[in-house]
Amino acid sequence: MRNKIPKNIILDVDGIMTTGQFLYDYKGKKYKVFGPDDADALKLLKRFLKIIFVSADAKGFKISKKRITTDMGYKLIKVSSENRLTWIKKNFDLSETIYMGDGIYDHLIMKKVFYSISTSNSSDNAKKYSSFVTKRTGGNRAVAEACLHILKKFFKYTIT
Amino acid sequence: MRNKIPKNIILDVDGIMTTGQFLYDYKGKKYKVFGPDDADALKLLKRFLKIIFVSADAKGFKISKKRITTDMGYKLIKVSSENRLTWIKKNFDLSETIYMGDGIYDHLIMKKVFYSISTSNSSDNAKKYSSFVTKRTGGNRAVAEACLHILKKFFKYTIT
Amino acid sequence: MRNKIPKNIILDVDGIMTTGQFLYDYKGKKYKVFGPDDADALKLLKRFLKIIFVSADAKGFKISKKRITTDMGYKLIKVSSENRLTWIKKNFDLSETIYMGDGIYDHLIMKKVFYSISTSNSSDNAKKYSSFVTKRTGGNRAVAEACLHILKKFFKYTIT
Amino acid sequence: MRNKIPKNIILDVDGIMTTGQFLYDYKGKKYKVFGPDDADALKLLKRFLKIIFVSADAKGFKISKKRITTDMGYKLIKVSSENRLTWIKKNFDLSETIYMGDGIYDHLIMKKVFYSISTSNSSDNAKKYSSFVTKRTGGNRAVAEACLHILKKFFKYTIT
Repeated sequence: MRNKIPKNIILDVDGIMTTGQFLYDYKGKKYKVFGPDDADALKLLKRFLKIIFVSADAKGFKISKKRITTDMGYKLIKVSSENRLTWIKKNFDLSETIYMGDGIYDHLIMKKVFYSISTSNSSDNAKKYSSFVTKRTGGNRAVAEACLHILKKFFKYTIT
Repeated sequence: MRNKIPKNIILDVDGIMTTGQFLYDYKGKKYKVFGPDDADALKLLKRFLKIIFVSADAKGFKISKKRITTDMGYKLIKVSSENRLTWIKKNFDLSETIYMGDGIYDHLIMKKVFYSISTSNSSDNAKKYSSFVTKRTGGNRAVAEACLHILKKFFKYTIT
Repeated sequence: MRNKIPKNIILDVDGIMTTGQFLYDYKGKKYKVFGPDDADALKLLKRFLKIIFVSADAKGFKISKKRITTDMGYKLIKVSSENRLTWIKKNFDLSETIYMGDGIYDHLIMKKVFYSISTSNSSDNAKKYSSFVTKRTGGNRAVAEACLHILKKFFKYTIT
Repeated sequence: MRNKIPKNIILDVDGIMTTGQFLYDYKGKKYKVFGPDDADALKLLKRFLKIIFVSADAKGFKISKKRITTDMGYKLIKVSSENRLTWIKKNFDLSETIYMGDGIYDHLIMKKVFYSISTSNSSDNAKKYSSFVTKRTGGNRAVAEACLHILKKFFKYTIT
């Protein structure tokens, strides 16, 4: 199975593309914290894989949408943590899908997909059940590291 | 005593649910920094324990209130650090209460409650006198880690 | 000399009371990042020492002023890094003064005062020439740690 | 070659002068996070070297411009990551140029210039191919450390 070439990558937004942190004022969730290199590395990866983002964050969805869809050009779907595995099964072939996540429910998905990635600061279960754990944390090049890892591992591609 | 089942958990907000940091502009305290997984894990914990938040931060109370009460649905009480132990004694049975805190006065409470939790970046005294110290820091899954720890230790519950 | 009791403590603001970081938008410096426990610990320390803050940051001075003076009640003086030693000499008896700083010029002051403190993420020279280096970083309880250290070392005071 | 004295230093902005992080609200990129000591150290360095900043960040360019040019007084040029080496070759003598960067394409430049610097949290390739890696991270004194390193190494200058 591990010799197969993946076709899709599904990435969580909060904690993966962001540090996981969000700023609140007295009116509510206001800012999310994104980081360097991830957008550049995803640009390379999209030559090889279909890239889809998912988020369970209703209150900050417009912030994620602005970054992921309007500014970076990727599809972002609102899917709750609880229904995420069912949703992925319905829309993708699990055996050709990479999943990158960090949360306390994500190991349930990681057990089922072709290949899975978490970050060094992900929840313990996510780290335990993922195929690859990035050295970097979310919002600190974790996605860039994951992209370069995938490019090398599955597509023999490096930046030269 | 340690075999007893707790009934309440009282959590401090700043440094526990947040990184402890707050952003100031020239008009005053404006933002607090919250993090991932904590809200999801508390949702699991509330099936087993009564959850109450306390805060001594008068200037940022409206920010905490928006996050903790309006958006997450938990009770938040303003109690000063100095009067906190007296307030807890008056309102809760110490022998069935878990306390999670990080500050320089919190060890005074930790010595008295059934079970206490601090974070890896809490004040030295809080760490020294708490029953359990999370590996994660405040605003970086410390509360999620504490919830999963409590669920497993006292209620034999894990996410599967 | 080390048996003498200090009378004053002069603290830098940026990097000491804050993480050193500041947020910029296209209009300029907008926010500074303060942290937990420092205000509580300073409240204890002021029973024993005169507390004065200094800052060289002209563009963010109003932000620091709001936090340090309006909200916490301490004196804050604008003094450039270059003139700081001269200014301290003119206004204080060096032999009864503690200085806490983190910057690339601060070792010049540290060599002259009674006792000096830097943080674990201060500039190398500040750390090399300070009497005490906190384990915590600026905006992450470094000042609280310094206060408790001073209270114990010079005034035999601990929180109980 | 290494005995030669450099004439220029070209620095990337995001991840070098900033933590690499940026805050998004639903309207887009709003804040960047700058840090301590870098401005002070660059003031020393400009007595010895021509200092030029480059950035590939179109959406946050006005923020960088405000900090780097309006407030600190340095030239900032918008150059894409892909065209950066060509642009540097066209405008500078590579053999007298220091480059400081952190991104996934920066090693391509580092292989060609006189001397190159990355930070401890730079991309792996940037760290692998740079002449010097700072202990500090971007927005946490990395540029100050680089400046003091250059001043000592090439100009025998230290702060006393």
